[in-house]
Amino acid sequence: MKMTNSYPEEQKKIDEMYMERALELAAKGRGTTTPNPLVGAVIVKNGRIIGEGYHIRAGEGHAEVNAFKNAVEDVTGATMYVTLEPCSHYGKTPPCADKIVEKKIGRVVVGALDPNPLVAGRGIEKIRNAGIPVITGILAERSIALNEVFMKYIVTKRPFVLLKAAMSLDGKIATADGESQWISCEASREEVHRLRHELTGIMAGIGTVLADDPMLNCRIPGGKQPVRIIVDSHLSIPETSKLVCSAKEFPLVVATLEKSDAAKKERLEAQGVQVIGVSADDGGHVDLNILMERLGEMKIDSILLEGGGRLAEGALKAGIVDKVQFYIAPILIGGEGAKTPVEGRGIAALSEAWHVSDWKAEMIGDDIKITGYIKERG
Amino acid sequence: MKMTNSYPEEQKKIDEMYMERALELAAKGRGTTTPNPLVGAVIVKNGRIIGEGYHIRAGEGHAEVNAFKNAVEDVTGATMYVTLEPCSHYGKTPPCADKIVEKKIGRVVVGALDPNPLVAGRGIEKIRNAGIPVITGILAERSIALNEVFMKYIVTKRPFVLLKAAMSLDGKIATADGESQWISCEASREEVHRLRHELTGIMAGIGTVLADDPMLNCRIPGGKQPVRIIVDSHLSIPETSKLVCSAKEFPLVVATLEKSDAAKKERLEAQGVQVIGVSADDGGHVDLNILMERLGEMKIDSILLEGGGRLAEGALKAGIVDKVQFYIAPILIGGEGAKTPVEGRGIAALSEAWHVSDWKAEMIGDDIKITGYIKERG
Repeated sequence: MKMTNSYPEEQKKIDEMYMERALELAAKGRGTTTPNPLVGAVIVKNGRIIGEGYHIRAGEGHAEVNAFKNAVEDVTGATMYVTLEPCSHYGKTPPCADKIVEKKIGRVVVGALDPNPLVAGRGIEKIRNAGIPVITGILAERSIALNEVFMKYIVTKRPFVLLKAAMSLDGKIATADGESQWISCEASREEVHRLRHELTGIMAGIGTVLADDPMLNCRIPGGKQPVRIIVDSHLSIPETSKLVCSAKEFPLVVATLEKSDAAKKERLEAQGVQVIGVSADDGGHVDLNILMERLGEMKIDSILLEGGGRLAEGALKAGIVDKVQFYIAPILIGGEGAKTPVEGRGIAALSEAWHVSDWKAEMIGDDIKITGYIKERG
Repeated sequence: MKMTNSYPEEQKKIDEMYMERALELAAKGRGTTTPNPLVGAVIVKNGRIIGEGYHIRAGEGHAEVNAFKNAVEDVTGATMYVTLEPCSHYGKTPPCADKIVEKKIGRVVVGALDPNPLVAGRGIEKIRNAGIPVITGILAERSIALNEVFMKYIVTKRPFVLLKAAMSLDGKIATADGESQWISCEASREEVHRLRHELTGIMAGIGTVLADDPMLNCRIPGGKQPVRIIVDSHLSIPETSKLVCSAKEFPLVVATLEKSDAAKKERLEAQGVQVIGVSADDGGHVDLNILMERLGEMKIDSILLEGGGRLAEGALKAGIVDKVQFYIAPILIGGEGAKTPVEGRGIAALSEAWHVSDWKAEMIGDDIKITGYIKERG
């Protein structure tokens, strides 16, 4: 086939179809590829898929390599679809761009460019220099959305924060008497457990710990356990809490002010808790921006912010929230004193509200799930 | 055409297509047909629509009559589609069933049966007895949903109550400082003004009146003004409020306890306010069930419940709410003290929550609109 600069609409549709499949494969790596991105690859020859692969686990084969490994035919002259630009550098594995050239692939279709600005475009350049035509940007937004955690972390070195809440249609996360189990339906709760598996950390405020004595672990059989992070400015966490008692089994980080009780800190550490001292913000609480830096250094690329309207408000005020995911159940609870998903002082004027962008609603079981992204405040 | 008992799928699809058009026509009567239902009719001959009509205003022609009036050809042998069973009795107009027979219609397709159990089926019987084949139940649910107000009122003689709220994604209807204008987008606010035009009454609690001094009128040019109903157990409404001062222009009903200040009641009446005394419920407030009976007697078939989390909770507790319509704006407001759509004491245990059934979410402008129906509590 002689390549020209033209890209017929029909060919684009075919390319999108196979890229769709590559994205499906990529998503299978959720929860295990950290700190690497989710990537999928499909090899197509004579109108048939002859090899598929995805990045399963950090340190193991990239999607392209796995697709080659799984190929059931000679890949010479085939088209390779890959959701993210093939790498061009030697890491734990040799560069995929070289592999593609070496395997004599006939054409490459790429989703998104490498999000690392230092290397973006280099993999594609290497392949093109070997005379192989490359098409880029096919379903790129989908690939970027799939890797929203990776994209944030690689650029900022701070974790991607997802604020989650389960509430009634009238905005309550518990009854006035504090009953909250369960507002959302089973399907929603299962999805939240998947999030605990997929995201590296889970964060809650001390208020939630004192009220509910939660475990904050992942209850999916074989699921990855998130690092549990408690924001506890005055180190009030009970040494007999479920969190502390299970700290040797499931990792637990308690973020407190530097000046907090040193003796209690030592006792907690003896129980397996990682206590990190953080300086205070203007309000005298743990500075969440500094905490995010520290957690980023600890290779925590993503956090599910789950517990407490006060911490949620603090996180929004600190500007650390990237995404919101609210599950709304088809019930009304009422109650002036019933807790809501974002509390604290809140904003004074509507013009200061936090805006949610690119939002959408979908049904999940009996609930409605609303997701969106937090824009800069104002 | 010889009629048999068979009803081919293809014919059903055609019937649904014309019924769809008849439903579209019916909806045009929103806000003006009260206390009559919304009805549309289409006359089809040789695969073409030759006449259309809908019920425009109570006391004027029914949908069928208007369709005959608008017909551009002889209707003999044509098919008539009508969203609701043709009437069989003499009211302000002669029975439509007779008219259909007289006009020699060849076939009749009906949406829903007459909701009045005393006459349901009689119109159809009359037409069938004249030898005209009748198909029923085509898009019947849509016709019933369109007439949810009428269906409730004709059977119970009590108004259909729609609880409406405009809130942020975190369930706040105002900031902690009380700012609420505007949380929802322009498209949502326009729709609410259409509701004020379409529903007969609008109801708010005295708390909302004291906080916001609202007008509660319809601002659509040429729109119908709703009867404004304030639940004010202790007759605290300021005589200088916008509501009272405009009572001679726009109807205002104040529902108060029978024992309330008689002198103030007289002064309000002199200003054009209709003050109705209602006995107390267990909590010592206006008994909302008795109020609904009274309003039903006053021919108020529908109420938009718009103002105040406390009244909303009281209405849910009294079991008078039929439907909820919540507009959720893509913002987060926060604040422990910020008002929410349903307040008061609320439920104690989750098992007592009010359930919302048949609910759905849709985008309206920047907002997400969630609607649903209130099931019996429990």
